[in-house]
Amino acid sequence: MAKLYEKTVPTPPHEYVRVDHKSLKNFVAAVLTSCNVSEEDSKIVADVLVTADLMGIESHGVQRLTRYTTGIKVGSVNPKANIKALSESASTALIDGGSGLGQVVAYKAMEIAIEKAREMGVSVVGVRNSHHFGIAGYYALQAVEHSMIGMVMTNSEALVAYTHSIGRNVGTNPIAVGFPTRKPPPVLFDAATSVVPVGKIEVYAKEGKKIPLGWAISSEGKLLEDPREILAKKGALLPLGGLGEDFGGHKGAGLALVVDLLCGVLTGASYGKNVRHTTEKERANVGHFMIAINIDKLTPIGVFLERIEEYKVYVKSLTKISEDAEVWIPGEKAWLTMETRKKIGIPIHKSIFKEIREEAAKVSLKFDFKILKETA
Amino acid sequence: MAKLYEKTVPTPPHEYVRVDHKSLKNFVAAVLTSCNVSEEDSKIVADVLVTADLMGIESHGVQRLTRYTTGIKVGSVNPKANIKALSESASTALIDGGSGLGQVVAYKAMEIAIEKAREMGVSVVGVRNSHHFGIAGYYALQAVEHSMIGMVMTNSEALVAYTHSIGRNVGTNPIAVGFPTRKPPPVLFDAATSVVPVGKIEVYAKEGKKIPLGWAISSEGKLLEDPREILAKKGALLPLGGLGEDFGGHKGAGLALVVDLLCGVLTGASYGKNVRHTTEKERANVGHFMIAINIDKLTPIGVFLERIEEYKVYVKSLTKISEDAEVWIPGEKAWLTMETRKKIGIPIHKSIFKEIREEAAKVSLKFDFKILKETA
Repeated sequence: MAKLYEKTVPTPPHEYVRVDHKSLKNFVAAVLTSCNVSEEDSKIVADVLVTADLMGIESHGVQRLTRYTTGIKVGSVNPKANIKALSESASTALIDGGSGLGQVVAYKAMEIAIEKAREMGVSVVGVRNSHHFGIAGYYALQAVEHSMIGMVMTNSEALVAYTHSIGRNVGTNPIAVGFPTRKPPPVLFDAATSVVPVGKIEVYAKEGKKIPLGWAISSEGKLLEDPREILAKKGALLPLGGLGEDFGGHKGAGLALVVDLLCGVLTGASYGKNVRHTTEKERANVGHFMIAINIDKLTPIGVFLERIEEYKVYVKSLTKISEDAEVWIPGEKAWLTMETRKKIGIPIHKSIFKEIREEAAKVSLKFDFKILKETA
Repeated sequence: MAKLYEKTVPTPPHEYVRVDHKSLKNFVAAVLTSCNVSEEDSKIVADVLVTADLMGIESHGVQRLTRYTTGIKVGSVNPKANIKALSESASTALIDGGSGLGQVVAYKAMEIAIEKAREMGVSVVGVRNSHHFGIAGYYALQAVEHSMIGMVMTNSEALVAYTHSIGRNVGTNPIAVGFPTRKPPPVLFDAATSVVPVGKIEVYAKEGKKIPLGWAISSEGKLLEDPREILAKKGALLPLGGLGEDFGGHKGAGLALVVDLLCGVLTGASYGKNVRHTTEKERANVGHFMIAINIDKLTPIGVFLERIEEYKVYVKSLTKISEDAEVWIPGEKAWLTMETRKKIGIPIHKSIFKEIREEAAKVSLKFDFKILKETA
């Protein structure tokens, strides 16, 4: 039997319960349906959120559910959005998300991309007028399931200080690229273009710890140690590569800008500081950008799968920097965490659990989580 | 008149001469023609090399000329390569570069990508069996000239230690993305996925300076200060984000791996440590990967150009971190340097100058550089 592995270990364990992922998914879907989202769309959102929890990306999991339901309540998110193509060709599409839930819009956009790439070998789909869509990797994996390479980007509310500037002026703008493999896990690169995602700052704040110098700067441009300053909107995250140009900060910032140009400028969505949060009244107008590549049109899929397995062996055989180190393939940790949590359940912090229960009570929803363990 | 600006200032000035870029280009082309490269192909390589010098990327400029001529001499580079499509569809192509000069192969591959994207809106071209191609941005700009977005990647000889490993096991694998603009400069992101390119290490070694801790590690995995250890192949560069995962080193390494999968695994080229240097006898089998996106198929090009100009204004108007700081758009420094050097000439180190002169003498070539200034 495979060893149980979790990318993020719930600390301290007694503050968490372990919940069966299927019952969690059903519950999340039910909450959304009660908010006027169709059953089909509710299932999509629930699957994206619970997959994030399964993968150990709790910051993008069910703890964000209230963000989306609040968005619906304030009227920024349209639960019955009309998602339509503004322009379309055999290999391209520009989609208007109708201010719908980002997960639903992105899922449907990637479905279109896959359909076009099946025929044409490659496709590109731009999306405007969407919302925060959760984990970018989810949609890359949609393409992977069809033996395609999926590339997915989104812009997001401004949290990062662009190189040589101060303030929050560009999003954490993640990039995900997924590749099919013969044996699981698929290769899945999925990363914000900032040093760390804001979720990591939240964890440090919660645990009362200082953050390492080099993650964030104050509104005056000084390196920050106190995570609460960032959460109080007085600081900004740094781009991958850090402050200035000495360690490549301009590369991380440049990548964030490329994502903004593809997701915001090309599609007609908002960009930079103009991208709104889900819970603000003004429409968020988040933009996404995705490419699907039908491998088989370039090289026989069997040959590709053979070669990528060889590549995985190559990476896993590299000489480790120390005895206790482990060399990881992108997506491997998330996959192992998913395997583990499908068995022992998803750790949900008791305070989040309470929040969700209250949410359920408000809409008179049955709260029937299958609890696998009363502690993590 | 625009202020003269150079991204990299030749230091000390008296060790350099300023050479007219056109005469330099003609000379480089003549050297290549004397090595059995066709006139047309010689011009392509010369333009790529001299453009790097114009842009202030000297590490990829004419100082690399001997690398390519040596490659031809040892038989690793085929000056009369048969570049052919192994598979092709309306939007895709897989090209065999026939061990030709990387610049020629990549230039022709991007021409194919542009042609396909003009019709289909988007295209993807993979290349195997090529060589080091110089600056990735050059080929992205080819697409930009046709009002398209160009994405270009290449793998390269292993110089980087993948996260949690030691040794040189993955290339600096750069990514370039270019966007057209109404007014110059175009936006051009072009960066190695390592903290710094190896050229920067060479500069520090030459100047006898220590490198900042966080650029490279020793063969034992310790942070290196002495640039000569890296050049002696005893050390490895670190991926963007640095050592380990605390500052996102796994993101830089993950990007390098994505580039290797697209350029090496997908195309059937070499990957990781198997990619060879231009001057080794074994064929390099470098792989490239490019995407061209015909903007007009997604959104009217006029609208896009309007919006990207607004975006440039947005970035240039960000609050600077200090009074003497400048906020740069990707490609802006390179563009200004090019404008400057077209006027005052390209600074060539006198030792390189001598090397080139000797190269010329060997093949009885006329050495008629137009020297604009005897010092930089």
